[in-house]
Amino acid sequence: MVKSAKTPRVMIVLGSSSDLPVIEGCKSLLERFGISYGVEVASAHRQPAKLHRILNKCDKNGTQVYIAVAGMAAHLPGVMASLTDKPVIGVPVAAGALAGVDALLSIAQMPGGVPVATVAIGSSGGKNAAVLSARIFALSDKKIEAALVEYRKYLAKGGK
Amino acid sequence: MVKSAKTPRVMIVLGSSSDLPVIEGCKSLLERFGISYGVEVASAHRQPAKLHRILNKCDKNGTQVYIAVAGMAAHLPGVMASLTDKPVIGVPVAAGALAGVDALLSIAQMPGGVPVATVAIGSSGGKNAAVLSARIFALSDKKIEAALVEYRKYLAKGGK
Amino acid sequence: MVKSAKTPRVMIVLGSSSDLPVIEGCKSLLERFGISYGVEVASAHRQPAKLHRILNKCDKNGTQVYIAVAGMAAHLPGVMASLTDKPVIGVPVAAGALAGVDALLSIAQMPGGVPVATVAIGSSGGKNAAVLSARIFALSDKKIEAALVEYRKYLAKGGK
Amino acid sequence: MVKSAKTPRVMIVLGSSSDLPVIEGCKSLLERFGISYGVEVASAHRQPAKLHRILNKCDKNGTQVYIAVAGMAAHLPGVMASLTDKPVIGVPVAAGALAGVDALLSIAQMPGGVPVATVAIGSSGGKNAAVLSARIFALSDKKIEAALVEYRKYLAKGGK
Amino acid sequence: MVKSAKTPRVMIVLGSSSDLPVIEGCKSLLERFGISYGVEVASAHRQPAKLHRILNKCDKNGTQVYIAVAGMAAHLPGVMASLTDKPVIGVPVAAGALAGVDALLSIAQMPGGVPVATVAIGSSGGKNAAVLSARIFALSDKKIEAALVEYRKYLAKGGK
Amino acid sequence: MVKSAKTPRVMIVLGSSSDLPVIEGCKSLLERFGISYGVEVASAHRQPAKLHRILNKCDKNGTQVYIAVAGMAAHLPGVMASLTDKPVIGVPVAAGALAGVDALLSIAQMPGGVPVATVAIGSSGGKNAAVLSARIFALSDKKIEAALVEYRKYLAKGGK
Amino acid sequence: MVKSAKTPRVMIVLGSSSDLPVIEGCKSLLERFGISYGVEVASAHRQPAKLHRILNKCDKNGTQVYIAVAGMAAHLPGVMASLTDKPVIGVPVAAGALAGVDALLSIAQMPGGVPVATVAIGSSGGKNAAVLSARIFALSDKKIEAALVEYRKYLAKGGK
Amino acid sequence: MVKSAKTPRVMIVLGSSSDLPVIEGCKSLLERFGISYGVEVASAHRQPAKLHRILNKCDKNGTQVYIAVAGMAAHLPGVMASLTDKPVIGVPVAAGALAGVDALLSIAQMPGGVPVATVAIGSSGGKNAAVLSARIFALSDKKIEAALVEYRKYLAKGGK
Repeated sequence: MVKSAKTPRVMIVLGSSSDLPVIEGCKSLLERFGISYGVEVASAHRQPAKLHRILNKCDKNGTQVYIAVAGMAAHLPGVMASLTDKPVIGVPVAAGALAGVDALLSIAQMPGGVPVATVAIGSSGGKNAAVLSARIFALSDKKIEAALVEYRKYLAKGGK
Repeated sequence: MVKSAKTPRVMIVLGSSSDLPVIEGCKSLLERFGISYGVEVASAHRQPAKLHRILNKCDKNGTQVYIAVAGMAAHLPGVMASLTDKPVIGVPVAAGALAGVDALLSIAQMPGGVPVATVAIGSSGGKNAAVLSARIFALSDKKIEAALVEYRKYLAKGGK
Repeated sequence: MVKSAKTPRVMIVLGSSSDLPVIEGCKSLLERFGISYGVEVASAHRQPAKLHRILNKCDKNGTQVYIAVAGMAAHLPGVMASLTDKPVIGVPVAAGALAGVDALLSIAQMPGGVPVATVAIGSSGGKNAAVLSARIFALSDKKIEAALVEYRKYLAKGGK
Repeated sequence: MVKSAKTPRVMIVLGSSSDLPVIEGCKSLLERFGISYGVEVASAHRQPAKLHRILNKCDKNGTQVYIAVAGMAAHLPGVMASLTDKPVIGVPVAAGALAGVDALLSIAQMPGGVPVATVAIGSSGGKNAAVLSARIFALSDKKIEAALVEYRKYLAKGGK
Repeated sequence: MVKSAKTPRVMIVLGSSSDLPVIEGCKSLLERFGISYGVEVASAHRQPAKLHRILNKCDKNGTQVYIAVAGMAAHLPGVMASLTDKPVIGVPVAAGALAGVDALLSIAQMPGGVPVATVAIGSSGGKNAAVLSARIFALSDKKIEAALVEYRKYLAKGGK
Repeated sequence: MVKSAKTPRVMIVLGSSSDLPVIEGCKSLLERFGISYGVEVASAHRQPAKLHRILNKCDKNGTQVYIAVAGMAAHLPGVMASLTDKPVIGVPVAAGALAGVDALLSIAQMPGGVPVATVAIGSSGGKNAAVLSARIFALSDKKIEAALVEYRKYLAKGGK
Repeated sequence: MVKSAKTPRVMIVLGSSSDLPVIEGCKSLLERFGISYGVEVASAHRQPAKLHRILNKCDKNGTQVYIAVAGMAAHLPGVMASLTDKPVIGVPVAAGALAGVDALLSIAQMPGGVPVATVAIGSSGGKNAAVLSARIFALSDKKIEAALVEYRKYLAKGGK
Repeated sequence: MVKSAKTPRVMIVLGSSSDLPVIEGCKSLLERFGISYGVEVASAHRQPAKLHRILNKCDKNGTQVYIAVAGMAAHLPGVMASLTDKPVIGVPVAAGALAGVDALLSIAQMPGGVPVATVAIGSSGGKNAAVLSARIFALSDKKIEAALVEYRKYLAKGGK
């Protein structure tokens, strides 16, 4: 279920369709910054082959940043980071009994060599995954650089 | 680095060679129970292809139980459980700053559908991975069943 | 209250009847895999004699795997593992104030010699107790081995 | 290994002989208060039958208070409290990776009906198990009541 | 607000009137065991003088066991234990943001010399404070000893 | 053991003489700011009467700020705050098994009405107790205000 | 949005307008003590320039104490303490998934040199920020000193 | 103390010179990838003006990625992310009593709008900060893209 027809610059992969509310703000911000994105649901554990297919296809087609969203023993971001050389941003989800502590540690505590750029648990993290993508793209994209300057002004005025 | 020439019944996979001390007791107990085993080092994140190769080969050759040993964001047991239908026992290691809490949660909090049989952090868990393997094999192996009876007597006398 | 008339292969023991919702998915999956099971309620602390009777009877009658479900200072799985040589799977329940962290540690941190195969807190863990049972039985049961292959396909298509 | 020839008023049971240093201060204080005690090592998991024997014998012979000392998934105090109607004091030990948090929760979070009087992790808890025993006995023992008054003065002067 | 006209054997002190629901089961069990009790509300921090008055009066009048119930930085049980030589049982309450972890640690981690008999967080702990009182009294009270035997049978039949 | 002959502006109270290393930096900074101080050791639990005497005497003699240093179930700062209307600064100490988490929660989680100004665990907290005292005094003391300006410059140059 | 026309003695700064309920009790108590205050919303991260402006203006106009209220990675109190020499009181808020533990640690664990006076998570902390302010002012303000004496009486009678 | 004469692509900022060992592997990897870098020490709390100067100068001179390394209440990465639009990678350090949990939460739990790309606590995180930088630069730098392919092969062979 790829949202934009052309290859999106950002591919958001969710470990479960129940994680969709976590990325509402993420999608809005990517649209604000003019960054194309797609959304896929693929569990690292239940659907490892599907996950490999998505990554292979996206990598070949030019996707540049991955946002991986998962709860509990959240292996999705780390598994993705082990299969691609693109930046992977991990968003922990507060699923199950432990309020996302399990997901935060499963995503942040990656061993040396295979980084995941971890952001906050839940929708704050979802938003920041979008802004971090924009900061990465802005290094070589003047339009997004300008959009970040506007966004900074928006925040300074009390926007969220 | 497979220890026994023939296909071992148990394959122990370590995320890092630094985890080797954790399985000293595990290996002794497997030998006590007469269970053949091999030991491989394969990081789920740094060596995903090697891990797939090991699992494919072992599954084909008849390995019956996997013991996966890993620290920090310990994805190794979960990734293995997503690739095989054999029982996977996960041993969390107290590596890094968080004393193994990160590994325990990364191993135990698996989502529904893909189980990892989690045991205690460190060498106690290593030993119990061996005993749990023996309990599984004893369901259809009288020799191991008898060895467990002996082991129970040994423990009752204060053995460890 | 044994569900199936003949001795079930799996006996599920709950520390409290309030834990029943946790095993809904567990029971469905055992049925999917064609594994007979029974359900008993026996608190390790309030009903130690009843627990011993259940274990003695089940062990004699040929029960092969135990699933022990408990919250708070969840001693049930460990006590059962100290009394039988069959594999014991422990499911922590999020009862009381601490969201199941107490139960997870009380179940997973068993000392060397007496293993409990710990799964995730709550209903995810309940499901995985069933799948882990199936993986154990599949080692010597072609029907269940085939059912696991089907189940893997079901998960791959997005099933949960 | 019962220390005093006659039945001691307090029986200290350790889950492992490695827990012995934790009760050094406990023993000194029991001696200060003139309370007879014995020391046994019996793992709740590895030696359940031995534990039952000890409890049966002590209960019959008139032991009045139990002090149970254990680490990790510390079931010993709770199992003892499920088998006797005497007060059981639980001392968590900082064994393994988790610094005693696992033992504290495994001892303190007992379900309703079967109490364990939990004290602090480690040797502070060991000392307080002795003082708590003295406070219990002092309810019907003027000598110990007087010893507690002396002990309070000792503490007030900076004693530890 | 002392409930029973004569000096009660047990005095329950709450840090806040909002803790009253936590002791519902505690009061029922004390009544079951035929143990007289009173209930007072006195914050260790906001009402230190009132707390001293209650303790002085109760100690003089023959109260034998104190049950102290408090949340957050729960100093009440420890402060009481520093002012009396009677056994003090501490019940942590899940008040505020931290679900009672703060109260559990503030009550259980007492330094050597001044014990608090800590029980579980919330109403399970409240019940166990009553049963622990009964176990203490039963050492020199045949009626309560018999009531505990009855209670054990009640639990064995599935009672809670 | 009061250090300065005249009544000091700051009284440091330690729960145990083993906490003395924690206040080395605290004392140096108080001297840098020209703030007189005394040091007393008084356990809230073992020496409640001594603690009351110190507070009464200091309050009467004009001590203006208290620094209370304690580990484990660290009630000292809260008890002091319940007995005086002066600002009380609490320094948690990493004593015992839990690395100071117990002390931090026991000090910070005070109920409404009786504040403790909590600072970091250990010697960083000790230093900040001194600086916080200086900030309080500087509100009506030009010399200390100037010393804080100098200190800020010192920090800006990399001083610690 | 400064509440009182003249420069307030206390300036309350919130990291987010959603934190307003946390300071209801804080404002009531400041009014009880006759302490003027203002309220501003300024995120340390989204509005760093606004925060600098507020601090510069307040410092120049004679604000004496700051109360900083923030959740999650709560940098607001620490950032304020790095920019002013006045006492800064930090109130952690239970926002997001972690119930305020993140905010508590982000506020309390300040490195040596730059203190934040941390109080409890949530509205209890909000109240205590007000009382702590009063205790600071009372050192040189007889009216507030008297108000604190009255407040102590109010608490002693069961007020909250 | 800027290492490379020309403006480096990556600027590493440490909260304290004691954090230097944490970035040993980070520096080696940046050199492996041919990425120029500088190292500065600037505490967010003790040296806020210095930190602003560094950021202003680096931003003007073309630094593209910041790596911020800090312990305890680790505000450094968040403060930097609030002052620049470049990607900021945060490395938590295990300083003080809490083994880096405080730093991890202070860095990862940023509110929406101002992202920090958090990596693991300690030297594993330091290494991953370097690899994440390389992944970001590789989006528009073929040389670094090739170096990552080589690095992946190195890891696959067991390199660390």
